[in-house]
Amino acid sequence: MTTANLAAFGTNRLHHVSSENRRYGFDNSVEPVLTVSSGDTVVFQCREAYDGQFTPDATLDTLKELDWDRLHAITGPVAIEGAEPGDVLKAEILEYEHEGWGYTTISPGFGLLADDFGDHFALHMWQVGDDGRVGLTPSVRVPIEPFCGVMGVAPEESGLHPTLPPTRLGGNQDNRHACAGSTVYFPVEVRGALFSIGDGHLAQGDGEVCGIAMEAPLTVTVRLSVVRGRSIPSVQCETRGRTTAKADGMGYYVTTASGADMHEGARNAVRWMIDHLEATHGLTRSEAYMLCSVAGDLKIAVPVLAPGHASNVTFHMPRSVFVS
Amino acid sequence: MTTANLAAFGTNRLHHVSSENRRYGFDNSVEPVLTVSSGDTVVFQCREAYDGQFTPDATLDTLKELDWDRLHAITGPVAIEGAEPGDVLKAEILEYEHEGWGYTTISPGFGLLADDFGDHFALHMWQVGDDGRVGLTPSVRVPIEPFCGVMGVAPEESGLHPTLPPTRLGGNQDNRHACAGSTVYFPVEVRGALFSIGDGHLAQGDGEVCGIAMEAPLTVTVRLSVVRGRSIPSVQCETRGRTTAKADGMGYYVTTASGADMHEGARNAVRWMIDHLEATHGLTRSEAYMLCSVAGDLKIAVPVLAPGHASNVTFHMPRSVFVS
Repeated sequence: MTTANLAAFGTNRLHHVSSENRRYGFDNSVEPVLTVSSGDTVVFQCREAYDGQFTPDATLDTLKELDWDRLHAITGPVAIEGAEPGDVLKAEILEYEHEGWGYTTISPGFGLLADDFGDHFALHMWQVGDDGRVGLTPSVRVPIEPFCGVMGVAPEESGLHPTLPPTRLGGNQDNRHACAGSTVYFPVEVRGALFSIGDGHLAQGDGEVCGIAMEAPLTVTVRLSVVRGRSIPSVQCETRGRTTAKADGMGYYVTTASGADMHEGARNAVRWMIDHLEATHGLTRSEAYMLCSVAGDLKIAVPVLAPGHASNVTFHMPRSVFVS
Repeated sequence: MTTANLAAFGTNRLHHVSSENRRYGFDNSVEPVLTVSSGDTVVFQCREAYDGQFTPDATLDTLKELDWDRLHAITGPVAIEGAEPGDVLKAEILEYEHEGWGYTTISPGFGLLADDFGDHFALHMWQVGDDGRVGLTPSVRVPIEPFCGVMGVAPEESGLHPTLPPTRLGGNQDNRHACAGSTVYFPVEVRGALFSIGDGHLAQGDGEVCGIAMEAPLTVTVRLSVVRGRSIPSVQCETRGRTTAKADGMGYYVTTASGADMHEGARNAVRWMIDHLEATHGLTRSEAYMLCSVAGDLKIAVPVLAPGHASNVTFHMPRSVFVS
């Protein structure tokens, strides 16, 4: 972050945390890398989700030989002076910087349609173009909107808490709306809050349906402040401007799936979108599944509203990703 | 619809179906009100969801004395010449006309948070202002974006199929993206398709969480065409332009709820939004619940991606509804 940017954000004190300071979970017994004052800004350098095992030269072998114990290397923790249990930690996401590349994978046993894809492995490498988009095929280009999938504070309960599940304190939120300009709020459970962040994504749809977003190393600038006199039960956030401003302008193709079970509804809505993309846009099933993960949005049109009622889950693919 | 509009939509033949032609479900043995050619346009006059029991003078007694057997009066059915089982029916939604008023209710035993609201009844009447918005309180105004909650075709299976559940053939889709400018596709199961529509909504969020949207009588103009050589497993649709263009510009407040059960996640995300609206915007719990239903959006940030994993459901309230 430049000094000019710093002034623009109204930030006085700036700190840096390198990606050497990485952990594979949240643990309140870990000494903070840094202790900052409320209102200070911290630049976190974050490796890609697998702790640097993926590089721009990655191949399918990288994926097949992956050490999954190094999943979700997160950078931190940073303590915020004055943060006490019961407070709220406010994290203003000021800026993301990417390194021009990212990747998406399909792996056996993981993802919303793991049963459908069986033993299949797939890898797609993304290069960010001058237009702020990345290409899946010559006719499919996705706008990037970077955010970190994992961000959170340490729990009161002792021990190492893995990053994989989303939790009330953060964890693997995979909330694509936590992009630059958004503010994320966390319930504080331990003195100093102990904030960490990582799992950079260049882009992701609501649902991250193949289980993997557009993974990438990111450097993220966050202003951290303590809010007193307010209590929240789980992570909350505020966004600015339009949702997915870059992909939203041309409308969507939407599949719907009804039934008592919303999980099965989500699976069917994605399945039927893959069928549609294969038939209409000539994508392979792997390409279609990955596109669904990085650009498609799962919404609940209506949940189960009374016993015996059915839900309707919808899946939305922005038309703007198809280059005519 | 005026002749000028008709020409603008490129429509040759125009038909009208009055709301006298109403049914309480889908049934392939019902004689069509009208048979039209593929590509013809039909103007459907639709009563509000309870078949006209609600009027602009409705009170809480109207709600308490409601005849629920008259739920979802839908207008139709209209047969489309040449539609055969296996085809797709394309319904281009050209225009909605409202009558300047609508209502939202809370009733015991119905809605995502029925347990929390117990025996509580509530009714809010909406008046459409010159700005295309309706007021909940002097400081909360919601933009309207009309659509019909129920639209669909008759099933192959005989008998009366009630409108309440969303189904693969339509039914109570409650898909707010089926607004003017959108095109909805239905799988055809019987000769002529037998299309019906109703359950007008002035506005609704993804989720319709209190179980009731901004209900209203609507007149909807639809161009109906048969598509051959294409097969779909369930209703699909295409939208134009930005999602919820009118409410989207100022960002959102977002609650998140994680856990193995997405249904419980949806409940918690809405619960915590109600808490937030009560604390931050001074709404009563009833007002907050109804606002969540007509303006808030349920999204699936991440579903359960592997056994033992957790989902993260998010609920988004547009900031633009709060008038400063």
